[in-house]
Amino acid sequence: MCGSSSVYQNKCIFFLPCLMHSPPLSPQLLNSLTPEENTQCQHGLYFQDGERRVDYILTYHIKKPSSSRSNRQSSRFTDNAFTRSLRRGTARLGRPPPPQPRGDPEVASQDHSMDYHEDDKRYRREEFEGNLRDMGLELEKDEDTKTPGVGFVKIHAPWHVLCREAEFMKLKMPTKKVYEVKQCSGVGAKINTLVNKATEPLHPNVEENRGQHVKHLSYAFSREKQHLFDLSDRDSFFDSKTRASIVFEVLKRTKCTKAKYSMGNNPLRCLFQLLYEEWASYSVFYKYQPIGLVRKYFGEKIGLYFAWLGLYTQMLIPASLVGVIVFLYGCATVDNNIPSMEICHPRNNITMCPLCDRACNYWKLKEACGTARASHLFDNPATVFFSIFMALWAAMFMEHWKRRQMRLNYEWDLTGFEEEEVSDHPRAEYELCVMQKSLKKEHKTHKVLIAYSWIGVTFAIVFGVILYRISITAALHMSNNPTTRSNVRLMVKTTAAIINLVVILILDEVYGAVARWLTVLEVPKTDRSFEERLIFKTFVLKFVNAFTPIIYIAFFRGRLVGRPGSYLYVFESYRMEECAHGGCLMELCIQLSITMLGKQLIQNNLFEIGIPKLKKLIRYIKSKRRSFQEEEREKKLQRYETDHFLEPFAGLTPEYMEMIIQFGFVTLFVASFPLAPLFALLNNIIEIRLDAKKFVAELRRPVAARAKDIGIWYNLLRGVAKVAVIINAFVISFTSDFIPRLVYQYMYSPDGSMHGFVNHTMSYFNVSDFQDGKEPMDPHHLGYQVEMCRYKDYREPPWSNTPYVVSKEFWAVLAARLAFVIVFQNVVMLMSDIVDWLIPDIPKDISLQIHKEKILMVELFMKEEQGKMQFIDSMTPCDGKGRNNHAPIARSRSIPHTHSHTHANNF
Amino acid sequence: MCGSSSVYQNKCIFFLPCLMHSPPLSPQLLNSLTPEENTQCQHGLYFQDGERRVDYILTYHIKKPSSSRSNRQSSRFTDNAFTRSLRRGTARLGRPPPPQPRGDPEVASQDHSMDYHEDDKRYRREEFEGNLRDMGLELEKDEDTKTPGVGFVKIHAPWHVLCREAEFMKLKMPTKKVYEVKQCSGVGAKINTLVNKATEPLHPNVEENRGQHVKHLSYAFSREKQHLFDLSDRDSFFDSKTRASIVFEVLKRTKCTKAKYSMGNNPLRCLFQLLYEEWASYSVFYKYQPIGLVRKYFGEKIGLYFAWLGLYTQMLIPASLVGVIVFLYGCATVDNNIPSMEICHPRNNITMCPLCDRACNYWKLKEACGTARASHLFDNPATVFFSIFMALWAAMFMEHWKRRQMRLNYEWDLTGFEEEEVSDHPRAEYELCVMQKSLKKEHKTHKVLIAYSWIGVTFAIVFGVILYRISITAALHMSNNPTTRSNVRLMVKTTAAIINLVVILILDEVYGAVARWLTVLEVPKTDRSFEERLIFKTFVLKFVNAFTPIIYIAFFRGRLVGRPGSYLYVFESYRMEECAHGGCLMELCIQLSITMLGKQLIQNNLFEIGIPKLKKLIRYIKSKRRSFQEEEREKKLQRYETDHFLEPFAGLTPEYMEMIIQFGFVTLFVASFPLAPLFALLNNIIEIRLDAKKFVAELRRPVAARAKDIGIWYNLLRGVAKVAVIINAFVISFTSDFIPRLVYQYMYSPDGSMHGFVNHTMSYFNVSDFQDGKEPMDPHHLGYQVEMCRYKDYREPPWSNTPYVVSKEFWAVLAARLAFVIVFQNVVMLMSDIVDWLIPDIPKDISLQIHKEKILMVELFMKEEQGKMQFIDSMTPCDGKGRNNHAPIARSRSIPHTHSHTHANNF
Repeated sequence: MCGSSSVYQNKCIFFLPCLMHSPPLSPQLLNSLTPEENTQCQHGLYFQDGERRVDYILTYHIKKPSSSRSNRQSSRFTDNAFTRSLRRGTARLGRPPPPQPRGDPEVASQDHSMDYHEDDKRYRREEFEGNLRDMGLELEKDEDTKTPGVGFVKIHAPWHVLCREAEFMKLKMPTKKVYEVKQCSGVGAKINTLVNKATEPLHPNVEENRGQHVKHLSYAFSREKQHLFDLSDRDSFFDSKTRASIVFEVLKRTKCTKAKYSMGNNPLRCLFQLLYEEWASYSVFYKYQPIGLVRKYFGEKIGLYFAWLGLYTQMLIPASLVGVIVFLYGCATVDNNIPSMEICHPRNNITMCPLCDRACNYWKLKEACGTARASHLFDNPATVFFSIFMALWAAMFMEHWKRRQMRLNYEWDLTGFEEEEVSDHPRAEYELCVMQKSLKKEHKTHKVLIAYSWIGVTFAIVFGVILYRISITAALHMSNNPTTRSNVRLMVKTTAAIINLVVILILDEVYGAVARWLTVLEVPKTDRSFEERLIFKTFVLKFVNAFTPIIYIAFFRGRLVGRPGSYLYVFESYRMEECAHGGCLMELCIQLSITMLGKQLIQNNLFEIGIPKLKKLIRYIKSKRRSFQEEEREKKLQRYETDHFLEPFAGLTPEYMEMIIQFGFVTLFVASFPLAPLFALLNNIIEIRLDAKKFVAELRRPVAARAKDIGIWYNLLRGVAKVAVIINAFVISFTSDFIPRLVYQYMYSPDGSMHGFVNHTMSYFNVSDFQDGKEPMDPHHLGYQVEMCRYKDYREPPWSNTPYVVSKEFWAVLAARLAFVIVFQNVVMLMSDIVDWLIPDIPKDISLQIHKEKILMVELFMKEEQGKMQFIDSMTPCDGKGRNNHAPIARSRSIPHTHSHTHANNF
Repeated sequence: MCGSSSVYQNKCIFFLPCLMHSPPLSPQLLNSLTPEENTQCQHGLYFQDGERRVDYILTYHIKKPSSSRSNRQSSRFTDNAFTRSLRRGTARLGRPPPPQPRGDPEVASQDHSMDYHEDDKRYRREEFEGNLRDMGLELEKDEDTKTPGVGFVKIHAPWHVLCREAEFMKLKMPTKKVYEVKQCSGVGAKINTLVNKATEPLHPNVEENRGQHVKHLSYAFSREKQHLFDLSDRDSFFDSKTRASIVFEVLKRTKCTKAKYSMGNNPLRCLFQLLYEEWASYSVFYKYQPIGLVRKYFGEKIGLYFAWLGLYTQMLIPASLVGVIVFLYGCATVDNNIPSMEICHPRNNITMCPLCDRACNYWKLKEACGTARASHLFDNPATVFFSIFMALWAAMFMEHWKRRQMRLNYEWDLTGFEEEEVSDHPRAEYELCVMQKSLKKEHKTHKVLIAYSWIGVTFAIVFGVILYRISITAALHMSNNPTTRSNVRLMVKTTAAIINLVVILILDEVYGAVARWLTVLEVPKTDRSFEERLIFKTFVLKFVNAFTPIIYIAFFRGRLVGRPGSYLYVFESYRMEECAHGGCLMELCIQLSITMLGKQLIQNNLFEIGIPKLKKLIRYIKSKRRSFQEEEREKKLQRYETDHFLEPFAGLTPEYMEMIIQFGFVTLFVASFPLAPLFALLNNIIEIRLDAKKFVAELRRPVAARAKDIGIWYNLLRGVAKVAVIINAFVISFTSDFIPRLVYQYMYSPDGSMHGFVNHTMSYFNVSDFQDGKEPMDPHHLGYQVEMCRYKDYREPPWSNTPYVVSKEFWAVLAARLAFVIVFQNVVMLMSDIVDWLIPDIPKDISLQIHKEKILMVELFMKEEQGKMQFIDSMTPCDGKGRNNHAPIARSRSIPHTHSHTHANNF
């Protein structure tokens, strides 16, 4: 099977050898449109006989017009002739008909330019359709298609095919047996009721979401066990999503095809309406999502995505609350913070050394007052608490997701369903590429090298931005006006962050393509491995892209700058950047907030809303131009024809990717930016409804895919959470001043207070030690002769035996920093493991329920068993008939169910 | 169900409320004895009719004789009367018979002392037996039991019960369909063939182990799909292990019972012989294990244990090789090691400060020469490489095990089998205890507190041993003869280690009981959670027990000792222990090797071989005493009667526990003891055969339990491997001198070599700075006046401004040590994750095979489907008979299969 993974849909066209075997049928979605549109195209849901339901639609392209004007005519004619001939052909499509030329030859005779290729396509299409009929599917070609150049094949799966495939797929279906879901009793129940009442307005107005007290026992569907199931209404026993995925299963098996989209279905009308009102609307943003309905409409895979997104958003609420409290704590204590008080003190008279050679001047420490105060907002003891909290929060989130997933698996009857992780379909590209592999091995290596060099581009660009900042800053330092200087410095920081953001946004798009290219070059063997490798690569590239500038600021800026008199230079003239006096935390914070907000606002919302709308518009205009005189006809288009103008479903990868990068912002540098969870929360509240709207109205309805879990995304989340621990440990100990303050307080402070800390962190420099050409051009800038200036570093004073060498304090602080990293990392990892271990993966009530189900199932079978035994005891073993109503049933069960077999089996 | 988890079998008697409901039937094993014994007791394998096979045996105790002499007579009489009456009762046991008094009343009338309790037991036994018959099992009581006081109930599961239960249990059985297992082709195949040829002598002489080219397609057994399976030989379709576990399943479901053991069976004779010769024998120690056979005989759970043990032993081979090489490298470079050369240099004239106050004397550094040289064996750069290697080795081992497990799952047809982790049976004790809980809540808390204080005992004992060493060492320092001094010092270390070992061995047994007690107090709800909690607690306690003294030596000894002139004291007079001049690594090594070797030799081998033999002997003697005049009769004992004297199977917990503690020794301190893997390897080669012998000959045959994985043990292994990384990081950076050497070489060495390192690590002490009463009693011991002595520490010299304060070098080395820990830990964790990620969990060939199986299964069904369709097409839907051989089958499948239904279904 190829193309089922939608992420490489386009590539498929170029790489798929399956195009050789598969007929050129392309898939089509029949979506539910906005409510007002849906009454006029009801009859598209059934075959011409008005009885057989359309379960799936395939589209194919009839020869495309080469010039828009002359061919529009011809294609319209083709169309009509084609469909007229079809009317005869589809009279009794249900039975495998004798091979008919059905229409296309006429088309061929009409259009003499139709080449061999077109002939070949048609031939393969017919072969494919024949195979489908052999599998028992019923096909009908649409007679009055109003979309030129596109043919539709409607597929109906009759009852016996549905039963057969359901058995093969081991679909769990509800049996007639109903049992009561045990409610917790005692105090738990009372609390539960209270909570339910309190959260009443938060639940969507959807029936299924309310606490159900009974549940149907489910059992893997089997034709021999039909009497277990309630088959009184065969039309609704398999819902439309299940029917579509059954047909899809047959298509996959029959032959390689690009078939991808199923159609909406009539019984889903009311469902769609509900989803539209109670889910895909901003007005219900404060409510829980009707996940059960989403799953019913879109299938388990998409249901899981929204369930995950919902849980994530929910979990962000406590995180943002604590984050806001931490931030407020910082705001409240800024006036009691001794180091910034000391810096801002009016009598503070410390002369600081110039920050660069020659061009810079001596300055007063008081000038750094503003930065120092602002830094305190993000650099206080509460931040340490908050990063531990967020690490545990992440562990808790993982655990809760595992439990939620288990609960959904139980509710959706997936508990027995084995995922086909081991038995994946090999990709058709694989075979082709293996053949070609030996031919161009060296070419491939070459390409991989080029591709990986793209990662270098990120670093180059980050470096470019750094250079921009350095040079501008250096230029600004030449200015003598201190106010412009500090103002312009802020401007430089902000513009640099914005440039970074723009670069990130552009590279993000580029990297998506690069990742796909790399994965294609690797030629993974199966679709699943293709998708996983692609996701992994994309993730790594986008992650590096988003976080490189931030990591640079957090860990590399302001290190190895040298000292006054011997500043470190790269490329002769560019000095290493230094952070402001309060540490680099403030700048890290600016960079983080701009990147995060910018990414969310621009990329997620603007791109996500804007681009699909634009694309839809373009498609619409295109088709309008092609057939503008048929406007009135368009209103009567079949639903699958209107759906043809919708954007195809491109997989959940972009949605998950966006969220996981956001998860990175929330957890990775949370020590320096406690408001990140709040921003994420606000974004996600919109995001859920945005995605919901997109899925309901903007995209073709995807095939319902079964899934038990969110797959590789869970592992990526775990990875991010792990990295977050170590990064936070380093941010706290190296970027913030937390450890130096602690060390001062407990090792050096004469009275155990923070008084004198600022003085302790600054070393002395004797201006006479300036080498020639490095001293400030204007030494009298401050109005007096400077003999000794100070700089922020732990170095020996000029009067020691080894002047300007790093001092003992430096090593002590470094050891403390490193010790903190070890302790922090291991304590947090241990605590996460304990959280992981304490919270059971399967909620207790679910595990009890599953146990109960198993017992009930055995009981059911044993009862049946005993009934049979009694029956046999009361009869001679010869083939006697009747007398007891068990006999006909026992026999009828043995007859295979075909569409002609309409006997009701309601044992 | 209670008591199925054998670890708390004995406790069960005291805690089980299920004894209230369940009949007093206790379980019995029918094992295969040594080959020479097995011909004489064949007929015990069948019911009296010689046809129905015995699938399971229950034993129960008839009133025990109160005085051995008078009651032996009566019980023998009872026995005979009882069984005579049984002969009537068991005439047609297959059908649920009318409730009969069957024997016991006669017993009751014989023995008037039989009390109400005995009556009650009998009543419940009968009720239970009736229930079993209702489930379709056939029962027979043994007529001529020769074991007084014990009654046997033989159970036979007729065909229809087997089928029904197999269907419920979703057992995967081989179908008739055979497919070829794809062999790899090309270079891979050639290498494979070569490897196979090379390892030919390593394979056991067992058919099944050779490469099979075909495999039966397996499918969950279902009576409706009987035609898929080859039922030509119904007797062998379900093998004896499966039959036993089916009966066990019924027993579990029927009522709470202590039933635990199944019996061997005739077709297994040759299997047993093979196992005895090709597995449970020391002469085949170099061969692979015939895991398939082990699984056939003992079931999946025990099969997995031996597969795991085998893989672990196999993986130890490369580890020991590398370990030996590392050790040899140490040996080879000992003469080129500059620090030890400097210490041992004849012209070395450094005077060292006394190691304790007053009692100790000045000494020459040369005295430490031997220790320094020996330390180099375990403290060289190769050790660092080796600990990284072992961390990766552990990750690799985990991954390989996952793959092996997957492969076994595939080979044993467990791929579809869902483990019942969520639907576990609640423990009967739970209900009882919940009732009693409120009554004695405070009592429980009290007990838990007492129990946890046991952990304190470990620490107390460790501390006691430390005190022993300190006091002896201090006493020895008073002696003036340097040779006795150094000799006795070694003796003290060794005796201390041996005392530690003995304490560990004793506490190990105590902790087993403590863990059980704690778990019982916790009242876990299900058997599984009980077992897991018990294992976890036992593991933690035993782990702490085994590693506390080692951790003390590695990380606490020799730290915080103070400096000459102000040594640190605890309890007034006991000084903190110091390590020899070469660091504590040497002592760590001694402690490790003694503990590891001692534990393995004494605990594992002596206890494991000796105690079961002893117990068997005691049982045998006991029974002999009871009936010594029946010796000749004993030879004709039924097999289940002889098996009665074997030790019951006590679960795999002790086996796994032993191995996991060993795994701890192999990985945790591998940086200090590179020979650990070698010792483990040697032990395990014996261990495998020892365990095999035990399982085959010493223990009753356990019920075959299905299992897909090794459960909690895998998590514990992972945990140990994780802890190993951080502990090794600390051993390398803090216990060994690796980091100080590195720091010296790159920061302080004038010429970049190690020359001068010894001098650099030692500080100066001015003897005039000794406080009163702290100076050595004999200052002229070395023959000259000492003015300045040296000691190993980084402190300021007496002539600095801050004498004896830790120096800048100290902080620099500390920072380097901490940095190394961070780098080592994170790099190794990252590499482990990469190993984890690179090695797929499912071997490629297995995943292909599973995929192939799925396709074949669908094909098979589709073919069958089409056959049916054609048949229906060729017939009118009326109930016509014959003409085509599909029809009778289709019908016969609908008739439930009972034991009276012998129609062969070989579609």
